[in-house]
Amino acid sequence: MSQILPQALIELTNELGQLPGVGARTAERYAYFLLNNRASANQRLSQAIDNLQLSIKKCPKTFVLIDADEEISELYENPNRDKKSVILVEEPLDILPIERTKKWNGTYHVLGGVLSPIDGIGPEDLTTKELIQRLIEDEVEELIIATNASVEGESTALYIQKIIKEAGIKLKISRLAQGLPVGTDLEYADQITLGYALDGRKVINEN
Amino acid sequence: MSQILPQALIELTNELGQLPGVGARTAERYAYFLLNNRASANQRLSQAIDNLQLSIKKCPKTFVLIDADEEISELYENPNRDKKSVILVEEPLDILPIERTKKWNGTYHVLGGVLSPIDGIGPEDLTTKELIQRLIEDEVEELIIATNASVEGESTALYIQKIIKEAGIKLKISRLAQGLPVGTDLEYADQITLGYALDGRKVINEN
Repeated sequence: MSQILPQALIELTNELGQLPGVGARTAERYAYFLLNNRASANQRLSQAIDNLQLSIKKCPKTFVLIDADEEISELYENPNRDKKSVILVEEPLDILPIERTKKWNGTYHVLGGVLSPIDGIGPEDLTTKELIQRLIEDEVEELIIATNASVEGESTALYIQKIIKEAGIKLKISRLAQGLPVGTDLEYADQITLGYALDGRKVINEN
Repeated sequence: MSQILPQALIELTNELGQLPGVGARTAERYAYFLLNNRASANQRLSQAIDNLQLSIKKCPKTFVLIDADEEISELYENPNRDKKSVILVEEPLDILPIERTKKWNGTYHVLGGVLSPIDGIGPEDLTTKELIQRLIEDEVEELIIATNASVEGESTALYIQKIIKEAGIKLKISRLAQGLPVGTDLEYADQITLGYALDGRKVINEN
């Protein structure tokens, strides 16, 4: 039996299947949606894909994503941003939730990943050298290491602390607080999170 | 504060957000994946989108999707396909699960939707006229109405029965069996499904 679906639909389904978390059925559904979509909307989508990589680069200072015609990230250049306070994140999109809190007016440094010997990712694949250089040049006073709470994230945080010490740089280093998310019932909290919440308990009334 | 993400990433995120079931976060994740994807893979994706609508048409006989350079669906033209048995489905993709059973060697007719007064979809928006014509021309002996078990699907099935009767066509009309899906525990079955399963029970041992 020959194929049931037209070749063009199969090809698009295959290409959409590359997207993270998209299986064959979801890709089929997306492709069928696009088949019935307005042609102009599809054109905008394919052009947005074509433009993407050409229109974006990394800020040479902070490694956050910027428009290709920008020099340096607005999140660094802005004089209201405190260059002596830096949050270190794994990936460019990690800055989004932090910006959304509207509680941070320091700057960022994007590491570009985490150390992962199993995937062959070592310090030379990350922006560690540029981080050290920046800590010195900008006389940074506090570095908040906001790598994820995964094994790789934790060991990368330790590695960063080590190379800062080796470089003889003196500054405050912190990690984001771990504990119960807002709105969580105690009975549903996992034991590790609850352990962190206990360790990091805050006194609210001192006699 | 100006925008946090580069314009090209925001545009692609917006366009991807059209896809069914894709919210802002998922679109962001897809866009970021494509940003880091191989350029050649992205090019194949955007070309597949560009080709899609140009490369596909509907079979003028069965209304299943076919390559633009085909005349008539292979699922109809194939001499091994029994043209006197037709399964009527709502949408072109509905034929996929049926073909995968490998239990059907009849043909298909795609209705192109279901009657839905609320969405302004009437008989003239569906391929009902072509269906009647085909039932006569091909001297169809059995029509299996495989519209979905939704309110619209059921009332469309009734409408199809009515116009077949009005056209004076004599043939066997059936619906797909409803009952318990394979592997379902009785205790999790909803009452409507269980009601159908009782009504349609099969005697396995007659004394």
